[in-house]
Amino acid sequence: MAITAHVICIGNEIMLGHINNTNAQYASKNLSDIGIKTTEQVSIPDEHETIISTIKNSLRGANIIVISGGLGPTVDDITLDCISKALDRKLIFNSKVASHIKAHFIKRGLSMPKNNLRQALIPEGAKYILNNIGSAPGLIITGRGETSTTLIALPGVPFELYPMFEKTVIPYLINRFQPDKTIRSRIIKITGLAESKVNEKIEDILKISGNVEMGIYPHPEEITVKITVTEKNAKSADAIIKKIERRIKSRLGKHIFGYDDETLEEIVGGLLLKKKKTLAIAESCTGGLLADRITDVSGSSKYLRMGVVTYSNESKNRLLSVPQETIKKYGAVSKQVAALMAKNIRLLANASIGIGISGIAGPTGGSKKKPVGLIYIALSTKKNTICKEFRFLGQRNIIKHKATQAALDLIRNSLFKA
Amino acid sequence: MAITAHVICIGNEIMLGHINNTNAQYASKNLSDIGIKTTEQVSIPDEHETIISTIKNSLRGANIIVISGGLGPTVDDITLDCISKALDRKLIFNSKVASHIKAHFIKRGLSMPKNNLRQALIPEGAKYILNNIGSAPGLIITGRGETSTTLIALPGVPFELYPMFEKTVIPYLINRFQPDKTIRSRIIKITGLAESKVNEKIEDILKISGNVEMGIYPHPEEITVKITVTEKNAKSADAIIKKIERRIKSRLGKHIFGYDDETLEEIVGGLLLKKKKTLAIAESCTGGLLADRITDVSGSSKYLRMGVVTYSNESKNRLLSVPQETIKKYGAVSKQVAALMAKNIRLLANASIGIGISGIAGPTGGSKKKPVGLIYIALSTKKNTICKEFRFLGQRNIIKHKATQAALDLIRNSLFKA
Repeated sequence: MAITAHVICIGNEIMLGHINNTNAQYASKNLSDIGIKTTEQVSIPDEHETIISTIKNSLRGANIIVISGGLGPTVDDITLDCISKALDRKLIFNSKVASHIKAHFIKRGLSMPKNNLRQALIPEGAKYILNNIGSAPGLIITGRGETSTTLIALPGVPFELYPMFEKTVIPYLINRFQPDKTIRSRIIKITGLAESKVNEKIEDILKISGNVEMGIYPHPEEITVKITVTEKNAKSADAIIKKIERRIKSRLGKHIFGYDDETLEEIVGGLLLKKKKTLAIAESCTGGLLADRITDVSGSSKYLRMGVVTYSNESKNRLLSVPQETIKKYGAVSKQVAALMAKNIRLLANASIGIGISGIAGPTGGSKKKPVGLIYIALSTKKNTICKEFRFLGQRNIIKHKATQAALDLIRNSLFKA
Repeated sequence: MAITAHVICIGNEIMLGHINNTNAQYASKNLSDIGIKTTEQVSIPDEHETIISTIKNSLRGANIIVISGGLGPTVDDITLDCISKALDRKLIFNSKVASHIKAHFIKRGLSMPKNNLRQALIPEGAKYILNNIGSAPGLIITGRGETSTTLIALPGVPFELYPMFEKTVIPYLINRFQPDKTIRSRIIKITGLAESKVNEKIEDILKISGNVEMGIYPHPEEITVKITVTEKNAKSADAIIKKIERRIKSRLGKHIFGYDDETLEEIVGGLLLKKKKTLAIAESCTGGLLADRITDVSGSSKYLRMGVVTYSNESKNRLLSVPQETIKKYGAVSKQVAALMAKNIRLLANASIGIGISGIAGPTGGSKKKPVGLIYIALSTKKNTICKEFRFLGQRNIIKHKATQAALDLIRNSLFKA
């Protein structure tokens, strides 16, 4: 049976939406890495009754409770008090903790406010975790009896919580629960297909269950499919992942552009290096975003020869010698202009691949014949120049992003053939 | 009595810590802005029993339930089914929603997969919110009877959820609950000063309390000061905010570049239009990010004449006729080269302001004399050309962002004088 955890984050600032609660994600990620499954994350305000009832609830619902926040020195830090009530354990003054807190202030040449001694009150039987960054100690309270719940309380400040979690909590949990399971996962990144289309092609695979969890997630620019496997050890988990991965690959083929944290610009950069090709970009509606994404990759100077943002017709003409007549005849947003932009930037930069993008990012500037989201992307090589028409939906910046994604994918596909 | 809300986020990827759940913060923030208090945020896996019991729980615990996630077209999207079971309302096929979903695919020149019709199933009596970005509609289900709970279900994809929340959900809730308390807030955006310096200048103001909450938050590119006021009505709240705002303005002067959601690129764009100036940009280490940020502003084509990304020395020479000797003598990352880039792009584009950026974004390419993060930003006008040296810390993309922020601020300041 899987070992389960509840993560409880305490703080009014979370309830007001003033801070983004990253502790819950951090805790769940690190727990799942050692085979402990988070079955609930809950955030609640600094209120006695709520905190106590939430803890009591989780005592019944999970093997492990991770609490963050409310351990500070101020009056609205009431977590310690609530834990002692929920577990019915007295708070006992701990002199070792007290002197460590004093030392924390002395180190910084400050005198310790009396309030901080409240942080030296520890529920009876609790193991404390000294805080080397702030003043609030962490706590590990082992439930009495075999199946009882282990409660862990940590400061809400992320960079105080992280070292306690990694150095003390994780080793403690491994040692106590010896999780006989490992959770491994793999992200498959797909572009050029709608989520529903991806779903259609691999619906049966997505239904795989048991010790495998499948998920499909849409993003503005790409679809990701996630395989998560719970197994005795990493080796057997990875074997299962590989097998499923191969099946998905056989269905989606070259629509899969990368895995896990890989970005499309990294993949394209790698291919350009491998094939010893160089790139030049002429952007209109994407306004430099394509060049920006390509140059987010360290070492991109090896293949990006030149980029131009020809936002005005004048600049299309002056920089890329696109004839005014062509612009007049077909419009700046047209196959013809995009193709000339691609070809001429390639020649100007003496690059092996030229990209030309022209379209309407909106929200204004659209017409019935040429609506917002209409984008032409051209790719030019010595051999030939191709141009594709796209129609994207969304706000201006999303349309810009989708267009650059399509352009990167166009480059990627051309490099397969090259 | 305060109107309360529970925010329920559904998704295994949240439980595994694979994604940072920003929807909970977003919902709570926007609810608190209209005086609705979030009393619980809970995240749970894609499991029928868990979802149903969590919803039933919140039906007793809050006036409003906001659910995000699990409305997609795929097999693991089970939220609709769980809602209909928890509320005991049949799912009824809605042809209006269905045709809107069909149109969504047609607009993009795609055929609609059969799966997507599952998204046209609406619990009886529910009000639907059409999705103009993705295919999943949102739902508002008004509880029967005066005190009963209103359930709102939205897609988990943030950029699909945001417009539904702002355009439909918030107005609906204001209209239904007429919250008797208003929470209003104002964000003041500051650039060109360190957090500690800002703190020093307005320390006393930051200490204001009572029905006022003050906060200071550092970001890679800017410092924000947030004023939050809780009052009976918006008018009195805004009066208090205005008063505090004036005091802060008198201390920080032109370091304040904007308010609330305003971006520096919008402010600069507005100034360029007002002063009837045009802009041309030559970027090296920022790789197009400055042009990208400027063109994120709708209407930027009115003032952005031209942008070039001259990543290689060759392109600096060919596009901007920066002499090879100058590059050899001073190096590509130098005051001299940045200044020539600024001046020559201005002349090439026949613009009133030219910007030249040259530096080392890292992680590689740094040296003792010219470390990673060293950036030269030049601004050229008919009158003169100035060049500033900056030393930024952080990863490649952070350094790129800080450099573009500094460049935008340089333009902003030059336009004050202009």
